[in-house]
Amino acid sequence: MPNDKLTAQNYEVGSTHARTFAESVPAFASGTFTPRDMLEECLAVIDTRESDVKAWVELNAELAKQQADASTARWREGRQLSPIDGMPVGIKDLLETRDMPTQMGCEAFRGAFPKRDNAIVWALRQAGAVIVGKTVTTELGGAHPGPTKNPWNLAHSPGGSSSGSAAAVAAGMVPVAVGTQVGGSIIRPASFCGNWAIKPSQGAVHRGERQATTMSTHGTHANSPEDMWTTLRVVAELTGGDPGFPRLSGPTACPPANRPLTVATLKTEGWDRASDAAKRGISRVAKAIEAAGVTLIGAEEHPVIEELEDRLEGCSELTTTMTAWENQWQLRNILASNPDGVSDRTKRGLTVAENLGPSGYERLTRIREQAKTVFRSLRRDVDVFVTLGSPGPAPQWEGESPELSPALWPTGDPVFNTPASMLGIPAINVPMLSVDGLPLGVQIMGQAGDDARLASYGRWMAELLAAA
Amino acid sequence: MPNDKLTAQNYEVGSTHARTFAESVPAFASGTFTPRDMLEECLAVIDTRESDVKAWVELNAELAKQQADASTARWREGRQLSPIDGMPVGIKDLLETRDMPTQMGCEAFRGAFPKRDNAIVWALRQAGAVIVGKTVTTELGGAHPGPTKNPWNLAHSPGGSSSGSAAAVAAGMVPVAVGTQVGGSIIRPASFCGNWAIKPSQGAVHRGERQATTMSTHGTHANSPEDMWTTLRVVAELTGGDPGFPRLSGPTACPPANRPLTVATLKTEGWDRASDAAKRGISRVAKAIEAAGVTLIGAEEHPVIEELEDRLEGCSELTTTMTAWENQWQLRNILASNPDGVSDRTKRGLTVAENLGPSGYERLTRIREQAKTVFRSLRRDVDVFVTLGSPGPAPQWEGESPELSPALWPTGDPVFNTPASMLGIPAINVPMLSVDGLPLGVQIMGQAGDDARLASYGRWMAELLAAA
Repeated sequence: MPNDKLTAQNYEVGSTHARTFAESVPAFASGTFTPRDMLEECLAVIDTRESDVKAWVELNAELAKQQADASTARWREGRQLSPIDGMPVGIKDLLETRDMPTQMGCEAFRGAFPKRDNAIVWALRQAGAVIVGKTVTTELGGAHPGPTKNPWNLAHSPGGSSSGSAAAVAAGMVPVAVGTQVGGSIIRPASFCGNWAIKPSQGAVHRGERQATTMSTHGTHANSPEDMWTTLRVVAELTGGDPGFPRLSGPTACPPANRPLTVATLKTEGWDRASDAAKRGISRVAKAIEAAGVTLIGAEEHPVIEELEDRLEGCSELTTTMTAWENQWQLRNILASNPDGVSDRTKRGLTVAENLGPSGYERLTRIREQAKTVFRSLRRDVDVFVTLGSPGPAPQWEGESPELSPALWPTGDPVFNTPASMLGIPAINVPMLSVDGLPLGVQIMGQAGDDARLASYGRWMAELLAAA
Repeated sequence: MPNDKLTAQNYEVGSTHARTFAESVPAFASGTFTPRDMLEECLAVIDTRESDVKAWVELNAELAKQQADASTARWREGRQLSPIDGMPVGIKDLLETRDMPTQMGCEAFRGAFPKRDNAIVWALRQAGAVIVGKTVTTELGGAHPGPTKNPWNLAHSPGGSSSGSAAAVAAGMVPVAVGTQVGGSIIRPASFCGNWAIKPSQGAVHRGERQATTMSTHGTHANSPEDMWTTLRVVAELTGGDPGFPRLSGPTACPPANRPLTVATLKTEGWDRASDAAKRGISRVAKAIEAAGVTLIGAEEHPVIEELEDRLEGCSELTTTMTAWENQWQLRNILASNPDGVSDRTKRGLTVAENLGPSGYERLTRIREQAKTVFRSLRRDVDVFVTLGSPGPAPQWEGESPELSPALWPTGDPVFNTPASMLGIPAINVPMLSVDGLPLGVQIMGQAGDDARLASYGRWMAELLAAA
């Protein structure tokens, strides 16, 4: 049901409710504003909006206040632990936290409280961040939605699976929240909510206990590129990369805007599902890029981009199917002890895995490797790849209806997000467009390991359209 | 304290107490011997020897009897689930089992009962195997020993970390047991106990919940190459490989003996620590190989083998250090909630990780990649690499003594085993030698993915020396 108060707050590019953490830091040092003050602002917004937005599973306000006070003291004494000391942050409830339950949006984990910290949570604590609470995830990070609403229009989905992290940032409840993506779970909700967000190169941030899948990454949602970048870079320096992978590299501060030489537009299999307004939006971006004197190419101009487009056909099914195979052990164990502990929507993953088998999985692994090889060969010719963050703005979603057959993608179609997941490359959502009073993101992608360069191009693009 | 009854039973090559599973199968089909009969034989041996050997943490005799009866019925009706239907098997207590606690040899996990199946346990059940119980592991699979004794001489170590799996097979308690290796935890105990054992190519068998480390694998200990191979091949076909890896490939039946064209001997940094008797033993093997008309080469004959030997210098420290880094998240979580829950020996891993840092870890990752590249380049020139399974037979170990400083490697020195772990290549222990009445294994290694070829070469070598 639309809420008048909120539907009135139509999204405009650049709309944001919260001050960013980066812009608050000078005041921390001078003492005119403190991490505790910032936390209190966050808690006040949560108090006002949470009953509508439903971004949180668990809030840890008292512990957060203690952490914020400790940080306030450290800033006062000039012994802050990191550039994000005192930063209020939300943690997606897929990730274990020592001091809060980890229920993964799943009935089978109701009340589960493993009292362990995921590596990124440990790193955030080491860096002095203030853990505000756990944000809503779809069930086990899959397609089955949680209760969260899109802060820009409560009748619409916030996207998923990082639903609560995206909505909490968009609503101004926290400047930064941690999400995870295996298909489109960071970038799509960022597109729907108007956030800056990064899905880093595969392996760039240690995933702690969540090592089961080959295409999942931890990333950040934020109200600014600075907070998005610095948070992830600081934690990666503490956690390192996943086993065998190099960590996120680059400067601690978000690199300044940098103009690319060559931009490639990618259509991918999402293009046919994109709305006309979304297509018009991305065309406007393309025109602005060209107008700035940057070479813009696509499949028609470059045979290897054409080959890449071909190899990305079927990408959504490939990533969904491979992930179903990789998640089967967890799902088998849940269902063995709790047959009704997960939704039918999630249970279907087991059928997908059983139909695939190990030889089917290995076949898809080889197809994925071939696509990666083609993508890597474009390194010399393309600085940044541009496409939509989602086929359109957030779809309406007011809950499952018993009269209707279950929606395939209640949190939106990940079709534009699976290529970056499949290729293991970094992707950033730049909140550049507005359609029907809702946000629509522009997604940029680069070569694996080029995350910092990608952030600099993203800032350039945001400035470009703001200036246009 | 040596036990007269057992020290009298000096090991001779080929000594074994148990009938193999493979040789029992024809009788299952005809009904003259049943899986239940086989299980009863196993339980009788356990009953006789367990008080001395201490191979088991947990026995599940009643459930095993039910499983064996069900298998007996399947064989009678000709609807067996797999070639290992009815096979009694022990599971290393690092791996989760739905129907037994998983305590990992660690005080912090005393009584832990997560009621989940590791992927290989699930696969064994699917294949109809009879899960006899959980075998002793060193603490968290590290250097800190459990109570298990070497069945050939109770005053000696069985090796580790797969201590109980190795001892249970050597004592004839089960024909097959599952182990895991991250440094030398499958091959070394097999060398000490006189078992056939395989550490497969990295990623060849899905590790279920144990995905934290880049060099660990699941493998099998057995009384015969047939049981060792078929068990692992059957489960790999069900679990597939680790995320992103191809599964163990090759025929279901163990390939027959096959003579290699070229064998390379590797000294590695273990050579200087090997006993004279062990060196004499491997020299005898080398002579027999040459006498059979096979080309035998080493670092002196081949510059790339010389380069490989150079690149494997420091391998033990590299694998130990990288693994300490990779295991830090688990260890941090254990210590945060239970500071006395692990031994000082294991706690030291955290100091190693902290001293290393992410950049140190990435440096070691690159060194490892370079060694792999050199090893791969030998594919054309070498069929199989031969070295010792351990620097000598099992060392004496009668428990920690308060007067002495803690032993560095109470379950034996893994120096000969870390190269295969570092390189991600398959290794097989061939029980070919006897030193001082104790077993000593010959370790053979091949290229990643060549596990089946390696098994065929191993059978050839075993026959070679038996015939000599």
